[in-house]
Amino acid sequence: LIIVGTIAIIGATIAIIALSPKCLVWWQASPIYQVYPRSFKDSNMDGGGDLKGIQEKLEYFQYLNIKTVWIAPFYQSSIKDFRYAVDDFRAIDPTFGTMKDFDNLIAVMHDKGLKLVMDLIPNHTSDKHNWFQLSRNRTGKYTDYYIWHNCTGGGTEAATPNNWVSFYGNSSWQYDDIRKQCYFHQFLKEQPDLNIRNPDVQAEIKEIMNFWLAKGVDGFRVDAAKFLLEAEHLRNEPQVNTSQNADTVTSYSELFHDYTTTQVGMHDIVRSFRQTMNEYSREADKYRFMSVESSDGKAIEKTMMYYGNSFIEEANFPYNVYLLDLNKELSGNIIFDTVNSWMRAMPKGKWPNWVVGSPSNPRIASRVGKEYTNVINMLLLTLPGTPVTYYGEELGMTDYTTKINQSEHNFGVHDPSEDPEKTPMQWDANPNAGFTTANETWLPVNEDYTTINVENQKAHPNSTLNLYRELSLLRQNELPIHRGWICLIYNDKDVFAYVREFDGLDTTFMMLLNFGNASRTNVQVAGIELPGQAQIRLSTNFNNNGKSVDFGSIPTEKGEGLVLEYKTNKPVHTKDNFKNNCYVSEKACYLMALNLLYKNC
Amino acid sequence: LIIVGTIAIIGATIAIIALSPKCLVWWQASPIYQVYPRSFKDSNMDGGGDLKGIQEKLEYFQYLNIKTVWIAPFYQSSIKDFRYAVDDFRAIDPTFGTMKDFDNLIAVMHDKGLKLVMDLIPNHTSDKHNWFQLSRNRTGKYTDYYIWHNCTGGGTEAATPNNWVSFYGNSSWQYDDIRKQCYFHQFLKEQPDLNIRNPDVQAEIKEIMNFWLAKGVDGFRVDAAKFLLEAEHLRNEPQVNTSQNADTVTSYSELFHDYTTTQVGMHDIVRSFRQTMNEYSREADKYRFMSVESSDGKAIEKTMMYYGNSFIEEANFPYNVYLLDLNKELSGNIIFDTVNSWMRAMPKGKWPNWVVGSPSNPRIASRVGKEYTNVINMLLLTLPGTPVTYYGEELGMTDYTTKINQSEHNFGVHDPSEDPEKTPMQWDANPNAGFTTANETWLPVNEDYTTINVENQKAHPNSTLNLYRELSLLRQNELPIHRGWICLIYNDKDVFAYVREFDGLDTTFMMLLNFGNASRTNVQVAGIELPGQAQIRLSTNFNNNGKSVDFGSIPTEKGEGLVLEYKTNKPVHTKDNFKNNCYVSEKACYLMALNLLYKNC
Ligand SMILES: [Ca+2]
Ligand SMILES: [Ca+2]
Repeated sequence: LIIVGTIAIIGATIAIIALSPKCLVWWQASPIYQVYPRSFKDSNMDGGGDLKGIQEKLEYFQYLNIKTVWIAPFYQSSIKDFRYAVDDFRAIDPTFGTMKDFDNLIAVMHDKGLKLVMDLIPNHTSDKHNWFQLSRNRTGKYTDYYIWHNCTGGGTEAATPNNWVSFYGNSSWQYDDIRKQCYFHQFLKEQPDLNIRNPDVQAEIKEIMNFWLAKGVDGFRVDAAKFLLEAEHLRNEPQVNTSQNADTVTSYSELFHDYTTTQVGMHDIVRSFRQTMNEYSREADKYRFMSVESSDGKAIEKTMMYYGNSFIEEANFPYNVYLLDLNKELSGNIIFDTVNSWMRAMPKGKWPNWVVGSPSNPRIASRVGKEYTNVINMLLLTLPGTPVTYYGEELGMTDYTTKINQSEHNFGVHDPSEDPEKTPMQWDANPNAGFTTANETWLPVNEDYTTINVENQKAHPNSTLNLYRELSLLRQNELPIHRGWICLIYNDKDVFAYVREFDGLDTTFMMLLNFGNASRTNVQVAGIELPGQAQIRLSTNFNNNGKSVDFGSIPTEKGEGLVLEYKTNKPVHTKDNFKNNCYVSEKACYLMALNLLYKNC
Repeated sequence: LIIVGTIAIIGATIAIIALSPKCLVWWQASPIYQVYPRSFKDSNMDGGGDLKGIQEKLEYFQYLNIKTVWIAPFYQSSIKDFRYAVDDFRAIDPTFGTMKDFDNLIAVMHDKGLKLVMDLIPNHTSDKHNWFQLSRNRTGKYTDYYIWHNCTGGGTEAATPNNWVSFYGNSSWQYDDIRKQCYFHQFLKEQPDLNIRNPDVQAEIKEIMNFWLAKGVDGFRVDAAKFLLEAEHLRNEPQVNTSQNADTVTSYSELFHDYTTTQVGMHDIVRSFRQTMNEYSREADKYRFMSVESSDGKAIEKTMMYYGNSFIEEANFPYNVYLLDLNKELSGNIIFDTVNSWMRAMPKGKWPNWVVGSPSNPRIASRVGKEYTNVINMLLLTLPGTPVTYYGEELGMTDYTTKINQSEHNFGVHDPSEDPEKTPMQWDANPNAGFTTANETWLPVNEDYTTINVENQKAHPNSTLNLYRELSLLRQNELPIHRGWICLIYNDKDVFAYVREFDGLDTTFMMLLNFGNASRTNVQVAGIELPGQAQIRLSTNFNNNGKSVDFGSIPTEKGEGLVLEYKTNKPVHTKDNFKNNCYVSEKACYLMALNLLYKNC
């Protein structure tokens, strides 16, 4: 009998394991918080942030319930701030500390259950990189590490191989007086493009990845992926305006980049990066995450290709930067379009993500208006997929332009137009917002720091910070929000509404978010079956928490967001007329009787 | 003791299995013989070949030691001979017989250990295909099965969406009077291109594959792969000659096909075909083979992409059509270049192949001259990889132009310029060469059939047929030729020479092939270590078989080829100065003491 019992228990265990959907992997389970390291925390009184500074603040991530920290480039870079031009991919820039600081940081992060993601920059180096010095002198294998051609070619512009222009304008070819040839650069002339078709260069990138992966780095964000390959035939790119005089074409937007972006073979190179990371990903908790930068505008299907497909792995996700285009022309309809276009284009079974801020875009509060900061954060943390938060957005930090001396910086070293979103993190009401004990900071501290700072907002339940924290906990604790269906059910000029539901659970959430003006919304017009009322689980206005609302007339203020909770056994995603508005990444079900999550449903 | 012994035996068995390199899969082990079904054997006295005719001749493949038979398209096609315009992918064209005939054929072939490969044509259908009829009438999902655009667009040619031209010249857009739109065709206007970006179309192709794979078809040759996708932006393709008046561009060679060939995503579609075939490939003997048509001229790296890479499966090989370019300008140097350029460009570990004839190229005897037929066959069967033989090339059949009435056929239904290489197979000296007992044949029989025929050549040891057979047996029986290294050691205007060797075996073969005029070759100048003499294992002139030659002065007649055999323990591929001239697909070694083939060497 004991044997039979044991077998039964083993059998049941096997059955449960077989039925259980795997838990979300860490990069799905937690939001990603992007740290701009020069601006986060200064540990050594030089007025600029550093790795030790980040280490001092790890408890803050835990307070926010964030497990994944993406640190913008900290590679050694002779160009002071433009950290995407790297002199040495195996060294820490002294301004951020030492390799020992890095090793300490990652060790402590891992002890605390935090993950560290960094940038991988395979498209180019700085012109100070040793490889470039060897290449311009035609030294051995380095001769072909960059893209060199004789300057005079079939192009219309004298002394360049063709009409290609760089992202920042003017020819993407630069004459080198040492080698007496032109080299190609997609970005600044100080950022020569690597010749990544060269297997030796691919091997170098792989070794760089191995270097950091062996140190325990948990993920890479692959920079500038679409720029990796260029056509070898060097034909002129077609002009957008064919009647423009070819000699006057100097701006990136004046050409179609058919020969310098998204070339055949590029995705296989990105996929080879994934393969390298897989060698370090055998255990789920050690899984190495890969995302790619992507920016294909209206050609969203190009961005989607970075997801790979059902039989080829590529990025876990391409960063979804479409929310970065939001501006003062905000409305419920625009948010609906932005969400829907990603969800609709995303390959089946893949995992979405949403990026609200970045070091190269004005802060959300300044772009759309402070009154919408909270509702944007509510959107970010209640959509399916991984939310990506740029440091300070959880406080509602704003762009600071007053004391930014744009003439101090010369373009090419540092883009002064991007300074306003890089001002120091606002920790408290002390001088320099607690960012540093130095007298000066590398960029001025925003004057609003006396109220907009972590310490102050921690003390106020209705603060942007506290809302972010509540949303992050809600996302973690509620299965429908964590990994359930999303059905887009309603939008108008003011409001966008969607439900999150999970098969087998009757607890359902509806997010009703106001991106316009105060209004009353009747979501019953959507034609879904709803109970009469719902409870406000969370409002951007904490005073409304716990109140009841009537689905026929839900009031929201300008910029107010509501997480409504109610019970139903008639989920929207099972309705035929909504099947084109509902999405799920990986179906799973819940069996209440056994408290069991299972997959074959 | 018995137990210990048993364990030891089991251990040894496991060790041997672990060490053993897997046997070559069938598509590597045997040459591929391409049958043009209309011309192979007529079974029903209508003057055209058919499936039953092929079945009557299966012993012939066994006689040749050939296991893989690729039959050119036999799908139902309303266009009489242009069988790449298919009306129904699930039906046999009545001229070839019935589906029952097909089922019988494949059953008997499998009984005899033969494999059947057929064409998959995913790029287009005929304009008689039901899908096209439904699409031109905008019926449901079929509306988007083809590539439709309004005819007037930004193009320079009136009433076409752009300047794209078809492979056969003139606009690749055709106005359809029913739909009042233009459809796109890469080839004839009777061959509208499928919109394979449409997931429904992809599903159709997959179902067609499933249909034939379930019937037991052993492999597909994917037709026109590079044409599968076209750019959606519809921009004009750039002119080769920018000063040409755009209105006069009508020929395919006048444009660069940057937007209509080899687009991003095409390879992933081909790879998805491989995935479908994998579902039927679980057992090695049931492995389904996939090759693709490729023709990228000097851009050989484009062709190589069809091999996939170390972590993505694609075709087992893209057909290597570079030998089809051979012409009267033959030389040892040209053959060296053709072989070397493929071997050098092929990704590591992949398997080569060599195609000598096809239904769209003059026969080799007519292209390079009859006197070189034998040495070309010797090249084909002693190179590493899979040889591909077009029916009749094993006899030295020649193009027949005398009685071909080119006016009988109109282009678009049938290309008369391709008839000379499609005349009936020459089986014996009976009327119509034994091809049919009908009075007339669909194309005239070549007058040379009284001497160039299977029966006659079987009886003569020094015949082209017998040489082919001997070469095929040699390839099968000798490990170095079957799967060993190749080292290209010598070439001049007359002669090309290479060795085939296998680690652990001292028996080595050197092929010395004359593609020019009679000469004496001193291969010792190559700087490899050789014994003084070698034996002629096989010569295109059987009288020379068994003779000894001195490596310092090897005589060959015009068009003579020699397989030399000798022993050495100093293989060429281990020498530093030859490492760039030696290639192996998958390294394996032989341990003479145990008669053991193993891999970790
Ligand atoms: Ca590049
Ligand atoms: Ca096509």
